[in-house]
Amino acid sequence: MSLLVVGSIAFDSVETPTDRRDNVIGGSATYFSYAASYFTDVNLVGVVGEDWPEEHTQLLQSRKINTEGLDIKPGEKTFSWKGKYLPNMNDRETLEVNLNVFETFSPVLPESYKDTPFVFLANGAPTVQMQVLDQVNHPKLVVADTMDLWINIQKDELLELIKRIDGLVLNDSEAKLLTGEENLVKAGQAVLDLGAKFCVLKKGEHGAMYFGDDGCYVLPAFPTDQVLDPTGAGDSFAGGMMGYLASQDATDPASIKRALVYGTLVASFNVEDFSLERMKQIERQALDERFTQYQQMLAID
Amino acid sequence: MSLLVVGSIAFDSVETPTDRRDNVIGGSATYFSYAASYFTDVNLVGVVGEDWPEEHTQLLQSRKINTEGLDIKPGEKTFSWKGKYLPNMNDRETLEVNLNVFETFSPVLPESYKDTPFVFLANGAPTVQMQVLDQVNHPKLVVADTMDLWINIQKDELLELIKRIDGLVLNDSEAKLLTGEENLVKAGQAVLDLGAKFCVLKKGEHGAMYFGDDGCYVLPAFPTDQVLDPTGAGDSFAGGMMGYLASQDATDPASIKRALVYGTLVASFNVEDFSLERMKQIERQALDERFTQYQQMLAID
Repeated sequence: MSLLVVGSIAFDSVETPTDRRDNVIGGSATYFSYAASYFTDVNLVGVVGEDWPEEHTQLLQSRKINTEGLDIKPGEKTFSWKGKYLPNMNDRETLEVNLNVFETFSPVLPESYKDTPFVFLANGAPTVQMQVLDQVNHPKLVVADTMDLWINIQKDELLELIKRIDGLVLNDSEAKLLTGEENLVKAGQAVLDLGAKFCVLKKGEHGAMYFGDDGCYVLPAFPTDQVLDPTGAGDSFAGGMMGYLASQDATDPASIKRALVYGTLVASFNVEDFSLERMKQIERQALDERFTQYQQMLAID
Repeated sequence: MSLLVVGSIAFDSVETPTDRRDNVIGGSATYFSYAASYFTDVNLVGVVGEDWPEEHTQLLQSRKINTEGLDIKPGEKTFSWKGKYLPNMNDRETLEVNLNVFETFSPVLPESYKDTPFVFLANGAPTVQMQVLDQVNHPKLVVADTMDLWINIQKDELLELIKRIDGLVLNDSEAKLLTGEENLVKAGQAVLDLGAKFCVLKKGEHGAMYFGDDGCYVLPAFPTDQVLDPTGAGDSFAGGMMGYLASQDATDPASIKRALVYGTLVASFNVEDFSLERMKQIERQALDERFTQYQQMLAID
């Protein structure tokens, strides 16, 4: 089955303690789409400016990502972000943000996208995320991401959104902020109490936690000694997860667990280089090989 | 097989955001022994003052912990520690430390302890840890813990110790400090390069990482929503791990993995109340039940 994603598309400038890249392809919907493309066709919705290079669009199209929903605004500039990672490679400072075309992003779905059964609302204003929900016809699974900004400035809208979706994906610190619970097990349960059917807490290098009717579990990150750039880890995680579920046309607990593993593994590759570089080097087979390694790592006789 | 532990025995005063306890039984060797006692007999070596209540000794003895090596110094006072946990329940401030008898701790092993095959050197000065090694006859497995203090003030002695032991157990932040590596996979490998046969990095609520000739793996903590007091989590983890290995008379990789799981699970109970309170409520069966839950949590079809 196909998968719809609505989110940001950006130029990223990233500084790490040992290296840097300027104006490389980034944004939540970009990372998500590329990660999901190992598993299924993706319908992408996003907005860019006239400065968006045609080869970036071609790169996405080469992965069977449908760019019919990519809105190119003449005379305007693409969203850009500049950030710097601290030596621990987990914490980062934002040095510069230019929202540009993204400031007034008001997604309009192409007719051909409206029946997409699997839907991911990448991090964005809850009002905009709900505007997307208003345009889709009976989706099978809707999952949304969010961030501290929206918890702080659009909490009511976010709470309304949570009641309309199936799953919420968010960082551990954001879950604490949203629910007021310091203990992550309590925070995850509290997200369910807000109306989500399931919740995934992303803990960065420490993995992810799942909460649903069927209980709670923790999956560690795949250990890698090559963390060059964590940008997009959460979005590629979500892309791997939703891509796998769409490919299986499944929403049952066992499939969600395998989906979280695939998300974990796509993210583990993604952080091994800047931008989409590492993902561009691998095919689905590399994910399946790491899947087997991961299974063995967690198998306890 | 039996298990030797040499470490601190203390009175702890602990403040958390919601509760507090004063002068309760604590110390690395205490937590370790109690945790190991679910699996095997323990030979304890430690020092206390005249103020040490006889009932604390009886409690340990009731768990088949041999207290022949407990040195009670007349006219002196027991080591005491006072700390306060921050709202995240991971970070803590030390408010007061009175080393008292522990300041001049110079462990002398009873004759009957010298052939103990499994040895754990709880956190202490590397010079003192080596003094213990000088007294044991051909142990089968020696594992040591350490902390930032010794990395800072006795690094040469610590490096000498590492070459004489089988396994080193330490916190993630301490591994970074010891090796200068920010990436935990690199830090763990670097500990092996220092001469340890294996290394376990403790990540608190995020679980533990193992490094050895047979590779690297990560095991998450068991998710619990009742974290009342994290004091002793690392020591009870080590106690469960070493206790299980001693009970199996095993040092092979598969046994070490099961041992790390038991360590994880004893620690998950330990944090559910202050001091030894939660451990006092459970028997081995509770650990085995949680073992099955943990196996299922990490099983990926």
